This record gives sequence, C-alpha cells and structure tokens, in this order.
Amino acid sequence: MEKSIVLLSGGMDSVLTLAIAKQSFEVAALHINYGQITEDKELWAFNKLCDYYEVAQRLIVDIKYLTQIGGSSLTDKTISINDANLSNQDIPNTYVPFRNANILAIATSWAEVIGAKGIFIGANQLDSSGYPDTRLNFFEAFEKMIDYGTKPETKIRIYTPIINMTKKEIVQTATNLNVPLEYTWSCYRNNDIACGTCDSCALRLRGFEEANLTDPIDYLIRPNYL
Amino acid sequence: MEKSIVLLSGGMDSVLTLAIAKQSFEVAALHINYGQITEDKELWAFNKLCDYYEVAQRLIVDIKYLTQIGGSSLTDKTISINDANLSNQDIPNTYVPFRNANILAIATSWAEVIGAKGIFIGANQLDSSGYPDTRLNFFEAFEKMIDYGTKPETKIRIYTPIINMTKKEIVQTATNLNVPLEYTWSCYRNNDIACGTCDSCALRLRGFEEANLTDPIDYLIRPNYL
Repeated sequence: MEKSIVLLSGGMDSVLTLAIAKQSFEVAALHINYGQITEDKELWAFNKLCDYYEVAQRLIVDIKYLTQIGGSSLTDKTISINDANLSNQDIPNTYVPFRNANILAIATSWAEVIGAKGIFIGANQLDSSGYPDTRLNFFEAFEKMIDYGTKPETKIRIYTPIINMTKKEIVQTATNLNVPLEYTWSCYRNNDIACGTCDSCALRLRGFEEANLTDPIDYLIRPNYL
Repeated sequence: MEKSIVLLSGGMDSVLTLAIAKQSFEVAALHINYGQITEDKELWAFNKLCDYYEVAQRLIVDIKYLTQIGGSSLTDKTISINDANLSNQDIPNTYVPFRNANILAIATSWAEVIGAKGIFIGANQLDSSGYPDTRLNFFEAFEKMIDYGTKPETKIRIYTPIINMTKKEIVQTATNLNVPLEYTWSCYRNNDIACGTCDSCALRLRGFEEANLTDPIDYLIRPNYL
C-alpha cells in the first residue's frame, strides 16, 4: 500500500477524510497547532482519532507564527469571534489568511521526505464559511505548484474527497463508516463544552439536523439552525 | 509608495533583492529561522542589513518544524554537509524539501494582513545548486495559487529580480548599488568564519573571482574556483 498524509485537525471533516484515505492508503497523520484558542481540545481529538484508526506515524507541528501575523479572530485574541450568520456570504473574521497554503506546504515537505504519494485534506467548498483557501481551484493550483517546486522524481497528489459534500452528507457518510464523532472537535471558542453558536458549531449542528441524527458531543446551547 | 515584503535571509542574493525592491516599494522584511546551523549569524546579518536600509517593519518567524521533518543536511545534524562540487548537476543534500514554498506561504499570509502588494525573493536559477524551488516556473505557479487561495480583493505578485543573474552579475550589481556585502552571510557550515568550501561559499567565491572583485568577509580557506 502506498503512503499518504492526512491533515487531521480533529474536526468532523478531517476524520471522515482519514476514514476514506484509510480505504486505499497507509496513513500518516499531520496535526497543526497554529495558536488557535481551541488547540488543547483539538490535540486531544487528534490523538484519540489516531489511536482509534491505529495511525502509527504522527507529526504535530507548531506554527504559532500565525499569531504573530494575526488578522483573524482565531489567532488574535483582541478580535472577538462572531456568532454564526449562515445566510451571510461575506468571509467571516475567523478566516486565517492563507492558512491552508501554510499547512499544505508543511505536508508537502513531510511527504517528500517520507515518500508519501498523496496529501488528503478535508476541505469543503459548499457548507464552509466561504474561505478562499477551501476551494477546488486553489487545491488544483497548489498541486501544480508542487510539481514545479519538488524534485523531478517526486509526485504528490492532493486529495479532497469531501470537497463537494454538504454537511448533511458528511454527517451521513461518517455515520455509515462508523467514524467515532464523539472524539471530534469543531468549536472555535471553547476547550471544554462546545458553544453551539460560533460558525463552526452552527454548520456542524445544522448538518446533524438535516441528516436527522444527533450530535454525540455536548453543547452549551443547541439552537435550531434549520 | 506601495508596500512589498522582502525575504531577507541575510545572504548576498537576498540583500541585493532588498536594494532593488527599495527603489520602487516601501519594504517590510521577513526572516525565517528554520533550524539551520548558521541561524545565529544569519539573524545578525538580517538585523544589520535592516538597520542599514532603515527597514522599520520586520518579522522573524520560527519554523523549526523543518528539523522535525529533516531530509536535509541543513536541518538534520546527522547528515554532513558535503564540500562543493560545482560541476555536479545532482541536487545536493543541502536541499531542504519544499522550503521556499513554506517561506512564501508565510510571506503571503503576512502580505494579506499588512496589505503588501508584492513579495520579493532573491532566488536564482542559474548559479544555484539546482534546487527545484528556485526556478521561475515554480514562482509563476505559486503566484497563480495565491490568486485562488486569498480573498478576492487580495492581489499579490511575486518578484524575482535576480533570478536570471549569474553570481558574477549579482556581485557586480550589488557592488554598483553599494550594497554592504560585509554584513551578509552565505556559509552553510559556520557561524564565525565562513568555511570557503561548502556549496554556498563556493558559489559566492566563484562569483567574486569572475567579477574580479574581493569578497569583504573572512574565510578559513579561499580555494580557486575558476
């Protein structure tokens, strides 16, 4: 089996991506701490999920420099994280400028060293927050750039298996694949009990509602998002 | 004047690039510590050069995760740095996998936050060591990827003003522009006196020889590379 790297934040999308990657590849898991508020809980989720899926090769990378750069409510504590407004089409202040390119560059460096042929990322361009670095044309452009910027014999593909799924489909597919969603974390704000009202909680909860399933994690409040 | 970011390692190529950028832009300087052996000396050079060119906006970013990833004699101390062999066309073991993409991703994040319109990088595809991430087609592909991965209103160009210069031309142009080459550092091995025999010293010394000029810094030995 060839090796692929899975970017595993510890959220629902990333673990479904891991479950899909495991069907065809030996998986190495990469987790990024970028100074986000919920780093502790995400790291807990990463380790729980790696244990569950028996991923031996793990790398945790610290890019706290994103807090030096700031420009996002996730990395600058002086900017408050707004409540979700799922009908608003603007890019919310949780956008971390060019974060996914930073993460994919790290994954590519690691892939070239360990001989991985693919990088799986659980990006989603439908029920996301409109971030520019979660769209298919960005990943296609990144893959081309990898070809030019690595050794001639290096060939690395970027896989985005859930990019066109709705959150409803993500919840359904994860449930069908017995993904342990109780070990995932999506909330932007809290490390203990999910807030239920940030963008990330709202998208997740709406996905469960649409799928007629119950999210196994606890929330401070569970608004109705349908 | 619009703002641009200059990647300033502290080497000869990067400071010439800074001198060129200063002619048309307000400059912000970015320095990357990636766990290289000569980090202390490069940081000294960075600060000396920023002082000389009166660059107020400076950012020093730590990406020591490249030492976790390894795969290069610059970031893995168990791999020894070979003496230069300037006629060898193979990629030497000083190649840090995909390093420039990691660095450009950081620069792009910073550019998007501070509103910089350009990123200057002193890459050189002629008298370089054959690294894949120093070639023009790599930078062109990166610039396209930036367009897809940043906000719609963000437009960032990558400038590579010395990419087609020989080292001889770099030495000549820097001298003509009164670049303080005594504050630069190129050696891969040492933090005190340049070795004179690593790939980077060899390319630099050959450039000075070809230009019929004398390198102002000290070397342990100065072999004849012509």
